[in-house]
Amino acid sequence: MDEERTAAWWGRRAWALLSAVRVRAPLVQCITNLVSMDIVANALLAAGASPAMIHCLREVPDFTPRCDAVCINVGTLSEDWLPSMHAAASACRPWVLDPVAAAASEFRMEACLSLLALRPAVVRGNASEILALASRSIAASSTFKGADSSHDSGDALEAAKSLAQSTGTVIAVSGAVDYITDGNQVVGASNGVAMMQKITATGCAVTALITAFVAVEPSDALVAAACALAIFGLAGEIGMESAKGPASLRMHLVDALYCLDEQTVTSRVKITLQS
Amino acid sequence: MDEERTAAWWGRRAWALLSAVRVRAPLVQCITNLVSMDIVANALLAAGASPAMIHCLREVPDFTPRCDAVCINVGTLSEDWLPSMHAAASACRPWVLDPVAAAASEFRMEACLSLLALRPAVVRGNASEILALASRSIAASSTFKGADSSHDSGDALEAAKSLAQSTGTVIAVSGAVDYITDGNQVVGASNGVAMMQKITATGCAVTALITAFVAVEPSDALVAAACALAIFGLAGEIGMESAKGPASLRMHLVDALYCLDEQTVTSRVKITLQS
Amino acid sequence: MDEERTAAWWGRRAWALLSAVRVRAPLVQCITNLVSMDIVANALLAAGASPAMIHCLREVPDFTPRCDAVCINVGTLSEDWLPSMHAAASACRPWVLDPVAAAASEFRMEACLSLLALRPAVVRGNASEILALASRSIAASSTFKGADSSHDSGDALEAAKSLAQSTGTVIAVSGAVDYITDGNQVVGASNGVAMMQKITATGCAVTALITAFVAVEPSDALVAAACALAIFGLAGEIGMESAKGPASLRMHLVDALYCLDEQTVTSRVKITLQS
Repeated sequence: MDEERTAAWWGRRAWALLSAVRVRAPLVQCITNLVSMDIVANALLAAGASPAMIHCLREVPDFTPRCDAVCINVGTLSEDWLPSMHAAASACRPWVLDPVAAAASEFRMEACLSLLALRPAVVRGNASEILALASRSIAASSTFKGADSSHDSGDALEAAKSLAQSTGTVIAVSGAVDYITDGNQVVGASNGVAMMQKITATGCAVTALITAFVAVEPSDALVAAACALAIFGLAGEIGMESAKGPASLRMHLVDALYCLDEQTVTSRVKITLQS
Repeated sequence: MDEERTAAWWGRRAWALLSAVRVRAPLVQCITNLVSMDIVANALLAAGASPAMIHCLREVPDFTPRCDAVCINVGTLSEDWLPSMHAAASACRPWVLDPVAAAASEFRMEACLSLLALRPAVVRGNASEILALASRSIAASSTFKGADSSHDSGDALEAAKSLAQSTGTVIAVSGAVDYITDGNQVVGASNGVAMMQKITATGCAVTALITAFVAVEPSDALVAAACALAIFGLAGEIGMESAKGPASLRMHLVDALYCLDEQTVTSRVKITLQS
Repeated sequence: MDEERTAAWWGRRAWALLSAVRVRAPLVQCITNLVSMDIVANALLAAGASPAMIHCLREVPDFTPRCDAVCINVGTLSEDWLPSMHAAASACRPWVLDPVAAAASEFRMEACLSLLALRPAVVRGNASEILALASRSIAASSTFKGADSSHDSGDALEAAKSLAQSTGTVIAVSGAVDYITDGNQVVGASNGVAMMQKITATGCAVTALITAFVAVEPSDALVAAACALAIFGLAGEIGMESAKGPASLRMHLVDALYCLDEQTVTSRVKITLQS
């Protein structure tokens, strides 16, 4: 890291990457869960990307190589979708993994670990998911809350670094502060509002946004992931200014993502190097 | 029933149960239809519950026993999901059934009856669905409207009582007035607005809300179901004050569910003992 | 065509068909993609139709013949849904096809062509989809954008006419101007706003609306399709007056569709005979 990564540097990078998504409209294949399809597709469109929800194994050889990136999300995992996930992850670089509720079952944990072995560029999860993945275990979940986290993001920071080192993947832990690490550096992104957790699939949507950012910046997944998380959180902050509850927040968030301008992004993105 | 169940008593009960959902955030597994996943998850989150849309048969043994309740909805039934429904219904107490469009086919009717045999705590449907279930027949449907009802809730009251008696399950019939019965008592809940029928999956969402209420009050499913129906209808009434059509009603309804306070609930819930 | 089809004639026809949908509430079975289910069902309800998302092969013999029309959409095609699509298309007249991303794979192209052979009343797609179908090829897609179009609707007009002639089906090409042709006449519908392309599944929703219109006017699919496209575009125009981005546009569009009145429809629908 030769240049100094000031707050202003991050603001410019975030704007540059969002602009690149808008201009290049990367084609992002999403093999995502059934709950999230609507918000994932709409968030990608609002950001300027071109989403394609295609999950059939027979379509992967023709379709996936034409995509700019792939987003895989195990939220509503089933045995018949897992081979498509493996095939698509193998057919496209870069790709991004969302290990939703990794600790829900042994089947799900094994699926996540098998996908992790296919070298995603980024894994984004909440603290409970990253802790579970790092321990390769569904056991320690007496406070298990399904797709919701029962830990703060900071609790999973050491696990994230360790997982990043052992897998060579950038790990992003969502929370009040999002931590993004390649196992060496740790970056914190602190945009966002608490009510976003009351909207289903916001985590899935930001993972998809990370995928679009990685599509236009494949050589620096750490920066791409941090910028996408900050941009999505910023859209939430702006949405919150007009929201009366989680449903209106969802609407205003997507509108805000579509409307973000340079001044807003460069002045309000909050990303800092932690170590 | 030793104490007198006045309107004020119901208002206090409804508030107490909503508060319990908010405090305890019950983990509710939903094996629901593909149309409803978004609104079901968002309604549960807005009410304070923790939804988990997990339907894979291989995950049921690990996951379902850790849930506080299960919601099963046959709206987009398929042969491969039915075994998961049976397994989850068998693995968790309490659980709640939504027999969407029960009269659509013999396959669906048989699926509903097989699920009914697994003793749900509550079955919630519209009048046409409850009439079909009680008659165990898809025949009498010359006015069949798919997932929409072609009968008023009052038309299904005797069928609901009979079905409750024969199955030992609380039956809730949605309509302008919602009727909830254990085969002996009948309770009426009359919150709500007609336009809610113009939003897809509001029925599925209220069934999920009933599940969350039953999760925190498993010993009195009749009261839990009545309170959930009234609370959801009340959220619709408040939403209607700002709505300009069904799509804005949907948003305002979910916002209102999130924002409900004690004064509003205790003064506006309309539940009465019918018999 | 004996009477003169003036702008006023089209306005009256569009209003008459929307009114017929509201009065008769046609039951429309949708075997649609997983992304679009919510907006498709809500758009049909807002227009006055009764949607039923039922895709299980075992339900087709009992259910489909009771429907007024069927809408089939291959957006998230899978091998296990294709037999249901074939069965439902064979069991109901009229039915409408949405060949989403037809050029995504050979599997998808073959599925679309096999469905086309089952004589839909209308096929609605964007220009890239219609061009791909007409050429029966996924090859010419160096600018392939998945479900998004990389061509203008006018580019596909000759292909649409040729496809309509060879299949005996009305072909509708969505775009800034929607072109609808039976291979002989060409009608243009020019309502709508560009931002509708930034909302996922608006194309799927208008295909479903076409299905509802064809259900009440099966004898003139060309007119039904043109009126549905114009009505949906008009709802978008009205929605745009209040929208701050694609998410609020989506909400206002559905509200507007629900609220459309005779004066608005007859004065603002823009349909013209092109040739």
